Amino acid sequence: MVPQWLIEKKRDKRELSEGEIRDFINGYTTGEIPDYQMAAMTMAIYLNGMSFEETSFLTDAMMHSGKVIDTSHIKVPKSDKHSTGGIGDKVSLILAPLVACCGVAVPMISGRGLGITGGTLDKLESIPGYRVDLSEAEFLATLEEHHCSMIGQTHDIAPADKRWYALRDVTATVPSIPLITASIMCKKLAEGIDSLVLDVKWGKGAFMKTREKADHLARNMVEVGTRMGKKVNALITDMNQPLGRSAGNAVEVVEAVESLQGKGPDDLMQLTLYLSARMLILADRVNDTEEALEMLNGHIQSGEAFHKFKHMVASHGGDPNAIVDLSRLPEAESRHPLPAPTDGHVAEVDADLIGRGIQLLGAGRMKTEDTVDHAVGISQLVKVGERVTKGNAVLTIHANPASKLNEAQTLFEQAIVIVPEPVDPVPLINELILPEGSST
Amino acid sequence: MVPQWLIEKKRDKRELSEGEIRDFINGYTTGEIPDYQMAAMTMAIYLNGMSFEETSFLTDAMMHSGKVIDTSHIKVPKSDKHSTGGIGDKVSLILAPLVACCGVAVPMISGRGLGITGGTLDKLESIPGYRVDLSEAEFLATLEEHHCSMIGQTHDIAPADKRWYALRDVTATVPSIPLITASIMCKKLAEGIDSLVLDVKWGKGAFMKTREKADHLARNMVEVGTRMGKKVNALITDMNQPLGRSAGNAVEVVEAVESLQGKGPDDLMQLTLYLSARMLILADRVNDTEEALEMLNGHIQSGEAFHKFKHMVASHGGDPNAIVDLSRLPEAESRHPLPAPTDGHVAEVDADLIGRGIQLLGAGRMKTEDTVDHAVGISQLVKVGERVTKGNAVLTIHANPASKLNEAQTLFEQAIVIVPEPVDPVPLINELILPEGSST
Repeated sequence: MVPQWLIEKKRDKRELSEGEIRDFINGYTTGEIPDYQMAAMTMAIYLNGMSFEETSFLTDAMMHSGKVIDTSHIKVPKSDKHSTGGIGDKVSLILAPLVACCGVAVPMISGRGLGITGGTLDKLESIPGYRVDLSEAEFLATLEEHHCSMIGQTHDIAPADKRWYALRDVTATVPSIPLITASIMCKKLAEGIDSLVLDVKWGKGAFMKTREKADHLARNMVEVGTRMGKKVNALITDMNQPLGRSAGNAVEVVEAVESLQGKGPDDLMQLTLYLSARMLILADRVNDTEEALEMLNGHIQSGEAFHKFKHMVASHGGDPNAIVDLSRLPEAESRHPLPAPTDGHVAEVDADLIGRGIQLLGAGRMKTEDTVDHAVGISQLVKVGERVTKGNAVLTIHANPASKLNEAQTLFEQAIVIVPEPVDPVPLINELILPEGSST
Repeated sequence: MVPQWLIEKKRDKRELSEGEIRDFINGYTTGEIPDYQMAAMTMAIYLNGMSFEETSFLTDAMMHSGKVIDTSHIKVPKSDKHSTGGIGDKVSLILAPLVACCGVAVPMISGRGLGITGGTLDKLESIPGYRVDLSEAEFLATLEEHHCSMIGQTHDIAPADKRWYALRDVTATVPSIPLITASIMCKKLAEGIDSLVLDVKWGKGAFMKTREKADHLARNMVEVGTRMGKKVNALITDMNQPLGRSAGNAVEVVEAVESLQGKGPDDLMQLTLYLSARMLILADRVNDTEEALEMLNGHIQSGEAFHKFKHMVASHGGDPNAIVDLSRLPEAESRHPLPAPTDGHVAEVDADLIGRGIQLLGAGRMKTEDTVDHAVGISQLVKVGERVTKGNAVLTIHANPASKLNEAQTLFEQAIVIVPEPVDPVPLINELILPEGSST
């Protein structure tokens, strides 16, 4: 293989073959192809695109650049959920134990937060003792025993993706639909799952700013996953306002625990249950959404879902008492209710501004090497369509001495728009994307 | 400057400003911008193009990445010629001394051959003792005394171009009109010239395969040079058959010397005189082509042009006797006339096949680090439109023991197409490109 011939092919909008894509990715993984050739190829892909077929070959090559976890000894269906990320998105913490209660194993490998988007790993690590770095044997043992385990990406999984992502970040080639598709799908499919439900978010607090772009990405991922022999669905969901009423790390664990106990906010519960139902349907555990919701609600009401979460936390070295007595989670030094400046109705809660405010408090990362303050964040956030009274809190800030409280508060004030006239709530779930020609 | 922001701008087809282009090129020259960011930027430029204005800023930034030679103490007009390269193109060797005789200084910095295209430096180095690596002081002294000096590129001239070209070569980004324009023009304008005549070749033996592409490149270079305050013209010329009757290194010096003595082949003389005439016109030494040709032919007939060449060779350390007694130039061990297989008329002399044949003899380079055999090549080549007789030579091969003679001969046989019916000669000069709105 002569790398520049393959770059030339993509440069001239010709399709790369399976072998060519595999050789290029292998060459990059071994270091035979240097970053500068990959950078030229990446910009050519960015500008000239990739067909579904090429994207599938790319995903496969990236997945096989490292270890594909063998879960074949676990004799229940294996399924996972992936979200493209948003503010206040703690769905995974609720969904994984809940779906595991229904006889579907959830081998979830998650990421850390970067920019305004929080990471599941950071949230889990606010539970004292919780280890996201289980060995593969520990991960598989936890999965076998509890049917769910939530860890971070290991060095073995899709190493090509890790190196490539860092390169894309500094060469302005991140927002490419085929490259995002391959990057997400190669890691998820390396988990050894049979099916996958995607939560593709759009709006102010999402990576994709428009519904159209989210739709495009979702269809790409569903098509590529299907071509790779997996059952894949996607939901298009609204991320113009944060999900639920809390955003941060420990504050989100609190909300997740409350949700597992049946006391979660409506929007968060609706999305979590619908995503979980799609997983049960794809895993052939139920016939339809109605049956799925009945089963899922049953496990919440019986306490089994919360119980499952406690067990999973314990088997990860976490303190299960910290999720029973939530005061044992990290707590910020001070709480500041933010009063509504006027009577009225909430017309907007800008998820981007909320996310940036939380970052100023210390809950997020600007760079991958930054540390996160697990205690800070916001709770008791109002939702679009709700009525507020002047002087009553529209949210509560959880701050520590290192938090940039004033700057954050200014962003929160800008984020929440109150108008005199009533406002309709915003629909959260916009669309279900199925594979072409499929009815489930 | 954040390099990825500028890459993003070009990726999104927005125009880069003068300052942004300068910062990017400076960053690349100092090493602050790594090759992988330059590779991504280069592919974005390749695919999204650059305006005339951006290309001018780029040329200027690349030129100022190194030394711009100060020729202001030389009180005659300074002009140069640049050819995009072809087979048998020894025009520079004739033109530089000839134009110098007319009171125009020619500070010519040339390149080496690569691929099938021969290089002026290699041809000059077949003259025993000729040094292409004069110091700047020696170069300027020769220029001042003889009004012409022909050297190789120094490390000081446009270092950004040298590093970038090597990168483009391995990232499939060489054939980009704005990048070729900037690469050629930054080096030429660093010579400290007032005007420049470009010979942009198209056809089988040229870098640009179609006249349309040559036209595009020529207009780009004329426009960019003009925006940078220089007088620039371009000729579009046919390189489907080799120029003149010899191709190689020493054999081309022989032909150049014969031309300087008034015994050159028609096509070579026509092109050399026309390019020289444009230089005299741009330098305001003459009013029109007719006056120019009279002056130029006068210097050939008087022997002054040849005399000038001899002096230039001597001041470069070369043996002037070797161009008086041409048998002192390197000579190949054997000569092989290639007989015409049939009576007829020459319909084609494929410059690409001739070039590749000469390479097999040893006259060219596959890689920059290869060495060149100065003695090998071809001479006495027939031209399209000429009549040939079965058994008479259509060319003479000059070979050494290391030459791949049989393979080369097969290519030469394929290159020359003989047909029964008469064939019109091919026009060599297709078009003169002047700056927009100019009549000279």
